[in-house]
Amino acid sequence: MKLIRIGNIENEKPGVELPNGDWADVSGFGMDYDEEFFGGDGLERLEKWIEANKTNLPKFNKDARIAAPMKRPSKIVCVGLNYAKHAEESGMTLPNEPVLFFKATSAIVGPNDDLIIPKGSSKTDWEVELGVVIGKKASYVSKENAMHHVAGYVLHNDYSEREFQLERDGQWVKGKSCDTFAPIGPYIVTQEEIQDPHNLDLWLTVNGETMQKSNTSDLVFDVPHLVSYISQYMTLLPGDIISTGTPFGVGLGFNPPKYLKAGDIVELGIEGLGTSKQVAKAL
Amino acid sequence: MKLIRIGNIENEKPGVELPNGDWADVSGFGMDYDEEFFGGDGLERLEKWIEANKTNLPKFNKDARIAAPMKRPSKIVCVGLNYAKHAEESGMTLPNEPVLFFKATSAIVGPNDDLIIPKGSSKTDWEVELGVVIGKKASYVSKENAMHHVAGYVLHNDYSEREFQLERDGQWVKGKSCDTFAPIGPYIVTQEEIQDPHNLDLWLTVNGETMQKSNTSDLVFDVPHLVSYISQYMTLLPGDIISTGTPFGVGLGFNPPKYLKAGDIVELGIEGLGTSKQVAKAL
Repeated sequence: MKLIRIGNIENEKPGVELPNGDWADVSGFGMDYDEEFFGGDGLERLEKWIEANKTNLPKFNKDARIAAPMKRPSKIVCVGLNYAKHAEESGMTLPNEPVLFFKATSAIVGPNDDLIIPKGSSKTDWEVELGVVIGKKASYVSKENAMHHVAGYVLHNDYSEREFQLERDGQWVKGKSCDTFAPIGPYIVTQEEIQDPHNLDLWLTVNGETMQKSNTSDLVFDVPHLVSYISQYMTLLPGDIISTGTPFGVGLGFNPPKYLKAGDIVELGIEGLGTSKQVAKAL
Repeated sequence: MKLIRIGNIENEKPGVELPNGDWADVSGFGMDYDEEFFGGDGLERLEKWIEANKTNLPKFNKDARIAAPMKRPSKIVCVGLNYAKHAEESGMTLPNEPVLFFKATSAIVGPNDDLIIPKGSSKTDWEVELGVVIGKKASYVSKENAMHHVAGYVLHNDYSEREFQLERDGQWVKGKSCDTFAPIGPYIVTQEEIQDPHNLDLWLTVNGETMQKSNTSDLVFDVPHLVSYISQYMTLLPGDIISTGTPFGVGLGFNPPKYLKAGDIVELGIEGLGTSKQVAKAL
């Protein structure tokens, strides 16, 4: 299934993208895509409900705004330096174990919403990433069992303000959590539709010029490794997102570096997970 | 007002501690202490509702479990190295601006719930901290206006696994986010009851021995500074918690360091904000 959420902010409704491309409104199922939904076998139950109601599902207008495909989760756990060539361009050595940081969930927006360049920013940068959506509570999970805790996958642009992240005192979170810094979607693609999450092309362009182009086969730590590893340090809740890191080609890595300015158009995609597009605006 | 939440996990109900020490059940008001409550003038409305219903409020049994005094917020923003002597004992220099990191909200427990020492931990440490609860959405707020965005204050033990935090690759979050690492409460004390948040004694003992004893007058960056500063990097939502940092006297600072083991009893308190007590258990 492809889970979508459609509508303006504060009026977002759950839906599914049907094989013919239509967007079916599934609000009648009675649940939004949140912790309770994923944790309560919502995917299986929704699938049956759609099957039983498929002849009379209302449709969303395809001009409507696409929201992030999950209601605000408890956390976004990001993985740093998880593609070898990106670690190199960032001037950092490849870690021995996954580098983790959080991104504020208040940064989540729809996949095609504007990117707001924060006040005082001169180093707003892009990062196309494969996001993993947790389907079942995960605490001390083994690599072998990790995939049972995954609901599906999602496209994420992990926007990063490099001065806030790296040149202010302290931890990376300051440069990762500004409003609009987490466009997610267009949809969550459930696990059974993705043959191999470790063989997906991913790419990002700025004003039509290719900046990032790689494949998730280059991930240093793969999805089962990450789910298992993170679950040793904290409990992953249903609906939580793991953003698995970005490949080579961020603005920071150019000489001189390239950063975003008002009017720039960022487009990105992952094979099977759709595309998204953000227009940069100054605050 | 003193906001409390009473009852076992998944069955927690909102209440208030009355001046005579009784715990009044205010579930009849119809809201839990969450983003919608704080953001929708819940404090003012609850106060009026209590005044109108004071003669017939049901009471909670005082033997019941005390839960964390807010429903899971969107984030816990922690401040590092915000007391000069603590920075020194940690072997770190005093920052020029606040050091921020996040703690997973899945770590939140009631103030007297057990501390679970995580698997593989040999360096679980304590940190008594003044928590600030956000009352009104805060984005690019000035220091002068910052206090209008504060609902109240709360006692927090920012448990930290020092090996996970400092000796594994990457950011501090790994050592801050284990389950039970954020006992919060007993209550949120609303702003008008705290004359001066920058003149509160705070203390922590382990097995009766005093480890931390300080006063919030020693904070490097005060509450208005922190609210304003953080709001430049992310939007603070109603119910969010800022944990303002810990004073001198954590286990890491001793020579040799002292860390917690199963059976240890940690007690802590802040003037006007009550006390809490955790018994350490091994997983």
